[in-house]
Amino acid sequence: KRAGVPEVILAAGKTTEEIQMLVETSLAGTGRAIVTRATATTTAALEEQYASDPEMTITVDERAQTVVVHESEFDRPDLDATVGVVTAGTSDAMPAGEAATILREMGATVERVEDIGVASLDRMLDQVPRLREQDVLIVAAGREGALPTVLAGLVDVPIIGLPISTGYGHGGEGEAALSGLLQSCTALSVVNIDAGFTAGVQAGLIARQLDGARE
Amino acid sequence: KRAGVPEVILAAGKTTEEIQMLVETSLAGTGRAIVTRATATTTAALEEQYASDPEMTITVDERAQTVVVHESEFDRPDLDATVGVVTAGTSDAMPAGEAATILREMGATVERVEDIGVASLDRMLDQVPRLREQDVLIVAAGREGALPTVLAGLVDVPIIGLPISTGYGHGGEGEAALSGLLQSCTALSVVNIDAGFTAGVQAGLIARQLDGARE
Amino acid sequence: KRAGVPEVILAAGKTTEEIQMLVETSLAGTGRAIVTRATATTTAALEEQYASDPEMTITVDERAQTVVVHESEFDRPDLDATVGVVTAGTSDAMPAGEAATILREMGATVERVEDIGVASLDRMLDQVPRLREQDVLIVAAGREGALPTVLAGLVDVPIIGLPISTGYGHGGEGEAALSGLLQSCTALSVVNIDAGFTAGVQAGLIARQLDGARE
Amino acid sequence: KRAGVPEVILAAGKTTEEIQMLVETSLAGTGRAIVTRATATTTAALEEQYASDPEMTITVDERAQTVVVHESEFDRPDLDATVGVVTAGTSDAMPAGEAATILREMGATVERVEDIGVASLDRMLDQVPRLREQDVLIVAAGREGALPTVLAGLVDVPIIGLPISTGYGHGGEGEAALSGLLQSCTALSVVNIDAGFTAGVQAGLIARQLDGARE
Amino acid sequence: KRAGVPEVILAAGKTTEEIQMLVETSLAGTGRAIVTRATATTTAALEEQYASDPEMTITVDERAQTVVVHESEFDRPDLDATVGVVTAGTSDAMPAGEAATILREMGATVERVEDIGVASLDRMLDQVPRLREQDVLIVAAGREGALPTVLAGLVDVPIIGLPISTGYGHGGEGEAALSGLLQSCTALSVVNIDAGFTAGVQAGLIARQLDGARE
Amino acid sequence: KRAGVPEVILAAGKTTEEIQMLVETSLAGTGRAIVTRATATTTAALEEQYASDPEMTITVDERAQTVVVHESEFDRPDLDATVGVVTAGTSDAMPAGEAATILREMGATVERVEDIGVASLDRMLDQVPRLREQDVLIVAAGREGALPTVLAGLVDVPIIGLPISTGYGHGGEGEAALSGLLQSCTALSVVNIDAGFTAGVQAGLIARQLDGARE
Amino acid sequence: KRAGVPEVILAAGKTTEEIQMLVETSLAGTGRAIVTRATATTTAALEEQYASDPEMTITVDERAQTVVVHESEFDRPDLDATVGVVTAGTSDAMPAGEAATILREMGATVERVEDIGVASLDRMLDQVPRLREQDVLIVAAGREGALPTVLAGLVDVPIIGLPISTGYGHGGEGEAALSGLLQSCTALSVVNIDAGFTAGVQAGLIARQLDGARE
Amino acid sequence: KRAGVPEVILAAGKTTEEIQMLVETSLAGTGRAIVTRATATTTAALEEQYASDPEMTITVDERAQTVVVHESEFDRPDLDATVGVVTAGTSDAMPAGEAATILREMGATVERVEDIGVASLDRMLDQVPRLREQDVLIVAAGREGALPTVLAGLVDVPIIGLPISTGYGHGGEGEAALSGLLQSCTALSVVNIDAGFTAGVQAGLIARQLDGARE
Ligand SMILES: Nc1ncnc2c1ncn2[C@@H]1O[C@H](COP(=O)(O)O)[C@@H](O)[C@H]1O
Ligand SMILES: Nc1ncnc2c1ncn2[C@@H]1O[C@H](COP(=O)(O)O)[C@@H](O)[C@H]1O
Ligand SMILES: Nc1ncnc2c1ncn2[C@@H]1O[C@H](COP(=O)(O)O)[C@@H](O)[C@H]1O
Ligand SMILES: Nc1ncnc2c1ncn2[C@@H]1O[C@H](COP(=O)(O)O)[C@@H](O)[C@H]1O
Ligand SMILES: [Mg+2]
Ligand SMILES: [Mg+2]
Ligand SMILES: [Mg+2]
Ligand SMILES: [Mg+2]
Ligand SMILES: [Mg+2]
Ligand SMILES: [Mg+2]
Ligand SMILES: [Mg+2]
Ligand SMILES: [Mg+2]
Repeated sequence: KRAGVPEVILAAGKTTEEIQMLVETSLAGTGRAIVTRATATTTAALEEQYASDPEMTITVDERAQTVVVHESEFDRPDLDATVGVVTAGTSDAMPAGEAATILREMGATVERVEDIGVASLDRMLDQVPRLREQDVLIVAAGREGALPTVLAGLVDVPIIGLPISTGYGHGGEGEAALSGLLQSCTALSVVNIDAGFTAGVQAGLIARQLDGARE
Repeated sequence: KRAGVPEVILAAGKTTEEIQMLVETSLAGTGRAIVTRATATTTAALEEQYASDPEMTITVDERAQTVVVHESEFDRPDLDATVGVVTAGTSDAMPAGEAATILREMGATVERVEDIGVASLDRMLDQVPRLREQDVLIVAAGREGALPTVLAGLVDVPIIGLPISTGYGHGGEGEAALSGLLQSCTALSVVNIDAGFTAGVQAGLIARQLDGARE
Repeated sequence: KRAGVPEVILAAGKTTEEIQMLVETSLAGTGRAIVTRATATTTAALEEQYASDPEMTITVDERAQTVVVHESEFDRPDLDATVGVVTAGTSDAMPAGEAATILREMGATVERVEDIGVASLDRMLDQVPRLREQDVLIVAAGREGALPTVLAGLVDVPIIGLPISTGYGHGGEGEAALSGLLQSCTALSVVNIDAGFTAGVQAGLIARQLDGARE
Repeated sequence: KRAGVPEVILAAGKTTEEIQMLVETSLAGTGRAIVTRATATTTAALEEQYASDPEMTITVDERAQTVVVHESEFDRPDLDATVGVVTAGTSDAMPAGEAATILREMGATVERVEDIGVASLDRMLDQVPRLREQDVLIVAAGREGALPTVLAGLVDVPIIGLPISTGYGHGGEGEAALSGLLQSCTALSVVNIDAGFTAGVQAGLIARQLDGARE
Repeated sequence: KRAGVPEVILAAGKTTEEIQMLVETSLAGTGRAIVTRATATTTAALEEQYASDPEMTITVDERAQTVVVHESEFDRPDLDATVGVVTAGTSDAMPAGEAATILREMGATVERVEDIGVASLDRMLDQVPRLREQDVLIVAAGREGALPTVLAGLVDVPIIGLPISTGYGHGGEGEAALSGLLQSCTALSVVNIDAGFTAGVQAGLIARQLDGARE
Repeated sequence: KRAGVPEVILAAGKTTEEIQMLVETSLAGTGRAIVTRATATTTAALEEQYASDPEMTITVDERAQTVVVHESEFDRPDLDATVGVVTAGTSDAMPAGEAATILREMGATVERVEDIGVASLDRMLDQVPRLREQDVLIVAAGREGALPTVLAGLVDVPIIGLPISTGYGHGGEGEAALSGLLQSCTALSVVNIDAGFTAGVQAGLIARQLDGARE
Repeated sequence: KRAGVPEVILAAGKTTEEIQMLVETSLAGTGRAIVTRATATTTAALEEQYASDPEMTITVDERAQTVVVHESEFDRPDLDATVGVVTAGTSDAMPAGEAATILREMGATVERVEDIGVASLDRMLDQVPRLREQDVLIVAAGREGALPTVLAGLVDVPIIGLPISTGYGHGGEGEAALSGLLQSCTALSVVNIDAGFTAGVQAGLIARQLDGARE
Repeated sequence: KRAGVPEVILAAGKTTEEIQMLVETSLAGTGRAIVTRATATTTAALEEQYASDPEMTITVDERAQTVVVHESEFDRPDLDATVGVVTAGTSDAMPAGEAATILREMGATVERVEDIGVASLDRMLDQVPRLREQDVLIVAAGREGALPTVLAGLVDVPIIGLPISTGYGHGGEGEAALSGLLQSCTALSVVNIDAGFTAGVQAGLIARQLDGARE
């Protein structure tokens, strides 16, 4: 695995017991465990196990479905770089939150900007100055996925488009958003549908380069 | 065929001779012939045949690839309704022009608004007041097709989205634009890729209803 | 959001509690809340909450899976325009009903015409005169989706085709109906599979234009 | 090969010389050669070779793109059964003609019914009594392919739906027609897009059974 | 609906109560009710209701998932024609049985030939003489769907290929079988995946023609 | 590259000059050059260049579209193993021939068995004893691709299915054959559509293992 | 069925009772029963039935979801050949284990190599010498499926690529892995997604040929 | 348009005359014109026009199909950042070159690394130290597209995967590479098939951020 990218435990398709074991192994090996796509049950089990343990810090983000456990001596990296994580609507919360968790664990500062979908263009335009100040942007959008395209025409910051599995019928489940981002007339880079983890890693690697450059 | 919709000769897949024969038949039957997807050769042949004929009026729109021939006594309908035909970029010209030709032959007034793609948002925003004055809008867009979605969030006029067969790779040939319009978070109605004829007919039928209402 | 289009709460993928909160917010903001894709449980919870409240009117359409709550002082728009909402068979009821609910909330008069699928052509032909009197038509059809195509050859009213997610095997889940409507030889405009909300908004915007023209 | 099904030479993808050789072999083996998808060049070459030969009869159907050569002593089967070959529009001519040629060579009587697409429903309804008299129907239709579905609701004759590769955009090249026929609410059997040969063979085999039953 | 085709109640997606009501209506209207895709629960409910009623005859085919109820005076048609219903393996039982039920209700004699998939070619070849005696064949096959193609090369009887939704991975759920039947080098007609009802109706209509011819 | 697999020059998409240069380089490096998908023009150019050169041996297989050039001292491997290369029909010749060329250059003995498609089952069954004697089989088939499935039920030799890009309409261009081979009820391994080179390499590697075992 | 390939009972879609009956039949016929895709419930039922029976040996592989029952006198074949079964990660365990079970029952020696996915290239490179010693390799990989491609560039052993149904979003459920293996620049043969049974049979047939050659 | 992204003229689908006009306009507006996907004819025409003009500098990259014209006073940006542009094989040259041209025009230093596809793993591993020194990597790969996945496991530099439209059959034209990159187990960001322009813009925007950080 790449030195700069933390190990992550994908909870989907695993039992709570399997996840608990993988968390133990990860803590033993690196002093940290990161779980994504955690169900409420798994999250509760991990909280019960680690919340009262003075040697451990556990951080749960329910909407992101992520759980992070640190041993007390764990030394998280700290990068001099800020990544904006932007959503078009409330359905984008899980993958966007997943990206934010990864970024924080890689050491980047995360700036969340929520619910600025193109259906309410004024709200979006209001945020443009703030977005221009970020080092990198991850922009999540479902349905037709227009938001990253529109923002990329307004800011010179590199944007990673994150398509979300919303929408029914033809092009549903994120396929329309993905193909729209790939076709975007404003030249985006893209990750797979709901791939918040991947978006986070990519933005985190850029943040590491910027941190290096700023030293 | 519907009484309110003119017969149209689709030139694609036909020889110039076949088209000339169909034009003759159409003129004989209705006093008018409308040809779409006409090649330069077919257009030239029709111009040679009808341009110098005092009994005939021929109107050619090269970018739209349409040719219209009227007998002198032909009485084109005249509707008290205006349809805005909007394009995101120059590649949208053919199907948008096709829609405009059909609309004019159905009697609507056509207002063209060109090249206001979302990559240059200011140019688009400048046109919003003018768009709000139209009775109906046809909005063409290729690649990711974001323009109709963004406009529908800004104007209360009914919008027919017209996806255009631009773009290479995944979602190319208009498929991304079509699925984006079908998934649009701003509730559009849609026609098939490059189906300027269909968009024109639909907007024309709405214009007829408005004309009836205004009488 | 467009001024002329009401806010709507899509219940699918939300808990009853989340929906109740969104209904409260919507009532507080606009005096009205519209819920689509409501399950029986959510509907029951909303009825329990609002049915006995003298300050509120609640309207439930079970087959449409819609719930509308009005504060007593809410002043619903009233448009001088009639939209026909037509179904081919009983499976079309939910999206067609969703369209009807939206239309009523936008102020249009809704005329329902049920079960006139092309398998019983006489029953369909009987309804043609009635359909010709409508200002706009929304025509729902599943399986092969032939009904909107056939009707569009018989009436000069603008038709919005609404494909329905019926049918198994190849082209099932509404994909055959959608592609058939997009390819229709009678020039339809179309919305996505089961997108009754979108069809309703589009027809409602046309009704608003007609209402303006009739004033 | 099945005894009751004639050998056929598919010209597509072969040179005129290859086809001429295959025709010779077929004549030598069975006293007959049937060529489908013949280009104008191939057809001309075959006419030059066989038209003036008193030992041979050559039958060319240009729209069907078929060429049939018989040795004078060839004894074509003669079945007591009639197959209706129906088209929705002029673009259906080639595959429908291909089916008709095969049927005639299998010995069936062929009744052609042309251009009765659902866009002109009256013209279609006029033909229903004639269609009811046929033993089997092959019904060709492109674009949305509604015609076989509508006819199957009106006649009790077995119908083989023949989807045609017309239409551009989503569901184009016959895919919408094929999936519509497979989904038809009036229970059709179907062959592949443009597969006039296959439709002809199937109808011909039914005609053979009927001929046997009538003896 | 076509006079020669019985009304059928598709149980899938309906509650037992809804089905019971539709059965009542069908019995009242025609003296017969046919239910397909019936679950064990629905079947049990119908048996409880009709099995002990001396005015009614109920016929259940569990593997076919069909239930047929006749009023005592119901006069089922009786056709002088035999249809072979052939399966490649045990997974084909449901749709093949559905076809058999429809055929019997249309009055045809049904000859079942089971489990002669091409993996055991000898068993298949043994059945060829018996298959040659049928008037029409419905041949069901899942996975790669080779059986109808191989049989059509051996018998001159018209064959309707019935693809079955077996198989996982690429081309699974019957898509490989469907496309293989459409591409078959032995010229088959085809119905949709699992569409036993449609196959039965088509074979039944051919049986009616043969019955007419034999009178 | 793997030591046991020869370098091959894919002519498709290259100019004759580019191919000639690559042939020179390959000869210089290994004493051999193998060209696949060679056009008639490229083949003629290579023949003109090498046929009269006493230092060189050139072997052209027109139907396979392969050209092989050996320097006189080139020592082709010689394996004690035989691979059967089987085709269903004449359209399979190019990829099957490509496989045969690769196999010969890897040192295997190649046994060609031609035109035993399942439409003429007797011809196929006649070849079964011969096929049982081969060490490995490559079986090419287009359209529905039934041949490898049927053969794999009859012989215990490992079979590599080679789908061929024949057929028009749905599942055309080899997609039906590929998905049928992947779904085969007789457990085949498969290569991509027209991938004769890949099939040849795989069979060649098995032949090498057998040669090692026999030593 | 092929003499060299054991009968296998696919548990998916069958009840425990049905499977128990098929196991009885298989034991009675061949002295062995092999069950794939067995659920925990089915496995428990079979263990209860056979584990304490002195006449029987039962072998359960939980991760492979396979159960094998042998009568005491059953004489499993014994082949002088070794097949390497390689996985990229833990999600590949079930289909890879299924292949291993089939191979053992066909008599091959199985060498398991686990978790050498390309994300940790060093671990993979460490195993190359061991892989070079195998007669054949089955290499399982999900997501992008890069492992078989990379290994095939390093070893001259024939490789059967086994794509695994992991991954969400576009190309998920194994489709990306399958198409990557079919496109591989290192010439692999392939089986369908999760088709461990098929991969095992193919490798087993090669092992039989090698065993014959070594005798 | 974004201030930091140069205007580019996409030559595909335009006549030489149209391109020449757009070049003039671009030069007049910005002092620079960049043309991508230029044919040999267009390139020759532009060279004839500008090469001998002392006021102009023209730079042609034939394999990249790009042409850049600068007015003598044009002041290209100069960024303190290096982007590695990596190819797996010679077919990747055009889109990779397109990316390189854009990057140079945006002011980045470009480091080309050619032909290190995974089929020759040693050659690839040799380049890893050099790749680790880049600020960002664009990695192009066709067929199965394994190269970016493997590299991303070895270097901590952000990687933009660029899938290339090579390969025939299933997953051909770059679709397998695209879906493999989206599914990659090593977390890549991705652009559309052949979208060298987009990859270049994204890498260029990151280079701008790094340049800012280094100042
Ligand atoms: N540009 C167009 N796109 C789609 N359909 C068209 C177009 N132009 C004409 N049509 C339709 O095609 C019909 C003519 O088709 P055809 O019989 O092939 O000439 C007309 O009556 C229209 O319904
Ligand atoms: N039945 C429906 N189908 C599609 N879109 C809907 C539907 N109901 C509501 N919407 C749209 O979805 C938005 C609400 O989405 P959400 O934020 O998920 O509640 C509304 O503002 C509408 O634009
Ligand atoms: N895991 C498996 N995947 C695919 N095919 C299998 C599997 N296990 C058994 N089979 C095949 O399926 C046949 C049994 O299918 P069935 O008649 O449904 O039990 C066996 O003879 C094998 O050819
Ligand atoms: N090779 C390319 N691939 C994709 N997009 C391009 C390419 N070259 C230019 N573009 C984009 O296409 C726009 C020009 O499109 P057009 O108006 O058709 O010339 C440029 O501003 C770029 O955004
Ligand atoms: Mg959005
Ligand atoms: Mg746009
Ligand atoms: Mg219908
Ligand atoms: Mg039609
Ligand atoms: Mg089978
Ligand atoms: Mg075949
Ligand atoms: Mg992997
Ligand atoms: Mg590669």
